[in-house]
Order: sequence, then structure tokens, then C-alpha cells
Amino acid sequence: MDIHTDPIEMQTLCRSIRRKGRTIGFVPTMGALHEGHFSLIRQARAVADICAVSIFVNPAQFGPSEDYAKYPRPFEKDCDAAGREGCDLLFAPKSSDMYPENYLTRVAVIDITSRLCGASRPGHFRGVTTIVLKLFNIVQPDYAVFGQKDAQQAIVIQRMIDDLHVPVTIVVAPTVREPGGLAVSSRNAYLTKSERDDVPRIYQALHLVEQAFEKGERSAQSLKSFLESRFAEARFFRPEYCEIVDTTLLKPLDHIKTTALVAVACRTTESGTRLIDNVVLGALKEE
Amino acid sequence: MDIHTDPIEMQTLCRSIRRKGRTIGFVPTMGALHEGHFSLIRQARAVADICAVSIFVNPAQFGPSEDYAKYPRPFEKDCDAAGREGCDLLFAPKSSDMYPENYLTRVAVIDITSRLCGASRPGHFRGVTTIVLKLFNIVQPDYAVFGQKDAQQAIVIQRMIDDLHVPVTIVVAPTVREPGGLAVSSRNAYLTKSERDDVPRIYQALHLVEQAFEKGERSAQSLKSFLESRFAEARFFRPEYCEIVDTTLLKPLDHIKTTALVAVACRTTESGTRLIDNVVLGALKEE
Repeated sequence: MDIHTDPIEMQTLCRSIRRKGRTIGFVPTMGALHEGHFSLIRQARAVADICAVSIFVNPAQFGPSEDYAKYPRPFEKDCDAAGREGCDLLFAPKSSDMYPENYLTRVAVIDITSRLCGASRPGHFRGVTTIVLKLFNIVQPDYAVFGQKDAQQAIVIQRMIDDLHVPVTIVVAPTVREPGGLAVSSRNAYLTKSERDDVPRIYQALHLVEQAFEKGERSAQSLKSFLESRFAEARFFRPEYCEIVDTTLLKPLDHIKTTALVAVACRTTESGTRLIDNVVLGALKEE
Repeated sequence: MDIHTDPIEMQTLCRSIRRKGRTIGFVPTMGALHEGHFSLIRQARAVADICAVSIFVNPAQFGPSEDYAKYPRPFEKDCDAAGREGCDLLFAPKSSDMYPENYLTRVAVIDITSRLCGASRPGHFRGVTTIVLKLFNIVQPDYAVFGQKDAQQAIVIQRMIDDLHVPVTIVVAPTVREPGGLAVSSRNAYLTKSERDDVPRIYQALHLVEQAFEKGERSAQSLKSFLESRFAEARFFRPEYCEIVDTTLLKPLDHIKTTALVAVACRTTESGTRLIDNVVLGALKEE
């Protein structure tokens, strides 16, 4: 596995790979790699000739009171893991090379970024779309793989790609879960013992909503009330939002006709960790 | 010359040209092609194998009280002229294909876009950077040619390219002028007879500033006062701004050390036409 830190060097290398007619599958990450990332890397390997992974804790997507400083950065361990999972090219730029002095450009998707996570994280998605477009221009991938766990992020990035005609195909990989159902996340490392015992309720409640939908319940209000009642029993977390929305514009639904995104964000009470999860109702199940 | 209106068709064609190892030189325009555009087309032909020109009157870069509706659109004449000047590929998309329903993405350069023309045209440069990035993703040019007449636009686009690592090289072509010195512009068509006789003063004054600089004057304030005194003699236009700024961040200068951009915008008194022009002090002269 080659490791590159210089954006221009990485861009030149990726261009030469493309010129040889080889395809690039790309997994942008903030490091602290876990089973979720590994599944994205495997997807990228499955669809393209060359697998590129970036590790960059992007300051532009953290709010001033968020966890940028304490976000885990186990770089050596990440390199070992990426190599083991079959990454060919690792890109780990310095912040000062991605945002040099006099950096002035912003890429923003409006409207759908003020809903769900965007409501409590102003500027977050603008930070995400800006860095993702920068990384796409450097790595020039044919495919980029994102996780379904960050459902809104995947929808926002797909919208940016469509709107700007970015020549990249997005692949969304299913959420990887622990045996109890908890979605795997780098931020799970912050959880206390009591919180860890309690937070599997998040997916358990989402799964019960899925089952109710499959049995025929189509009222978003009923499903939402059910979800909230389950969360009311939690001892070590509080929901920040529970929403049932359409999968394109993320607008709240009354009645579910075809598909819907059930998205939740919770904050734990001891460590203050923010966890998100979701299920898509009415989607074709993956094999 | 091939004419394409469908963005996906154009993108597919341009990708296949690039894959064959041929380079693309691109001139984005709003049509109403004149000698200024022809010089850009000739530049594009000189640096690349294939010359692509786009014609698109971009609604996103016009303010609500500006001339979007009346902007000239002589499409047939433009096609003839582009073909005659050696354009290989003409791209003329429909507005509904560039901004379909639910279009949500914005590309913005901050700070330098609120100065000079940006001060009186809020949102203008965001419209420009958004459409230019969209066009770059569709046409995938190796080179893109812009005119020095729109100096701030060229600086803003270069900043976007640097910040987002867009793999396109910008070529800035010198301003084409009428015999009396007036910068060639599509908006000159709006001018009344009296205005047309008066507006050559704009460049004449800029040229006198150039001469004063060449004779050793380095005080931006003195040069600016001189410029304003010349414009005070105009009968059919008023200056909107006269600024002497650095060529990167467009900040007003006191003392000119190496180079400076002298930029002016004027509004004519009869037709209300807005004209811009500029000279760069201290730059190496082109042959």
C-alpha cells in the first residue's frame, strides 16, 4: 500500500492510473477505522481496479463546540488496517495543505442540509460537501463508497454530484452493526459502560418500526409515536430527533406511499456522545 | 462543428475525447459573440487539440433587477461565428437541464467576491462559480480561457480552481478593444449614440494611469484621485467604483510595490448600461 500526504502528488498519481484505463474506487474517511469502514473498502475493491482510502479529520465539518480536538486519530493502526483490508492507495493530507492560508471556497447543498442532523449542526454538511468535492478532484475516482449509517450525508453528496455533474458514481453500503444491533461508529469509543448497555435500544426500536411497516402500518405519525415511546424508556440517552422523511428532499411524511427514511440522533447522558442511526422502509432488501 | 444541448451527451462525448488522449480547450460564454470571444476561441485552439465553446445565459448570475431577460441571444449568428472561428464542439444547454427542479447546490468563493463588482451585484459571483464548475465537470477541459476584461471573474475562478483542486488550467486572454479604446462587450449593444461617443474615456483614463505608473507614481491614492478627476468630466456615464487593489485578495492598496489591478465599473446615464474595464499595473507586457 502506498501512502501519500501531498495533494498534488496524489492527484498526479491518480490521473496516471486513470489514463492507463484502470478504475478507482474511493473511500473517504476520518480514520479511526472500524468494521463499517472495512465493509466500504471491500465494496470499493469489488467495483474498481484500484482501491483508494483517504484519512482526514476535516475541521470544516465540526462545529466550534464539537469533538474535533478529541476525535480519535490512531494513524499507525489505521494504516495497518487499511493495508490488511486491501487498500492500494492511502491519502492522508495535512490540514494546512487542504485549507492553506487564503482558502476561500465553499460548496453547499441548501435546504436538505438544514433538516435532521443539519438542524443541530449548522455548517456541518457544507464542510462535508466541500471536502468531498476537493477529495474527488484529487483522487478522480470512478466510484466512491459511503455508509448507509450516515444516510443524510449520502443523500446530500448524491445531490451535489447530480447538481454539479460530477463524474463519480456513488455506492452506498449497508450499515454494519454489533451483535446487539448498535451501528458501528468511531464515536462508540466515547461511551461509558452504562451507556453501552443502553444504546442497543436505538436500533432495536428502529427494527420494531421496520416490522410494524412490514405488517402494513403506513401512518408516519403512528410509527414515530411508537419510536418515541420506546426511546422514553432509555436511561442513558435522549433522542435529539426522530424523523420519518422522504428519501430525496428529506421532508417529513404523513403517509408512507413507497419508501421512507426513519432517522434518529441521540445524545448519551454521561459522556454526551452523539449517535445516529436509521432504517429505510420500503426499500428492496439486500441479499 | 457539432452542436450539443444535452449535458449527459456532451459529458460522454468529452470523456471519450479525453480517453483518446486528446486535449480540450474550453471557452464558456453567454453568447452574443464578438471579437473578445473570438480571441478566446483562438487561444483555446492554440493550446489544445479540440476547441469547445458553451453558450448559456446563466440566470443564476443575474440579480433580480438586472438584464437577464433582455440579454442578447442571437443563437444562429453565434453558431455561424463560432464555427468560422474554429470551434469544434458547441454546447448550448437549456436552462431546465442545467437547473432542474430540486436543484440545490451552490459553489461560492467568499471575501473577494464581495469587493469591486461583487459589492453591487450580490450573488453574481456565486452564480458564476457554480455554473463554471458545472460546465467544467461536463466538458472536462484541460484548459479554459477567460478574458482579462472580467478581471475579478478570472481571479475568482482561479481561486475556486486552486481551492477545490479542479484539474483545469486557466488561460487569461488580453482585453480586446475598439479603435478608440473601448473594451469590446456584448453590453455595448445597449449604448445610445451619445454614450458611445463618451465611454472611450473609460479606457483613456485607465491608460493615463498606466502611463503615470510607468513614469514612477506608486501612490494608489494619487492614481485613484487622478482617475476620478478624469471621470468627473464624463457627460454620459458615472463611475460605480474605481479601485486600485492587489491581484490576489483584491484589497485596496496604499502603495503599489509590485503589481496592482486598477478596476472600474461605470453606469451610463441614458440607457443605464453597466460597463467594466481594468488595467494591471506592473505586469509583464505581452508581446
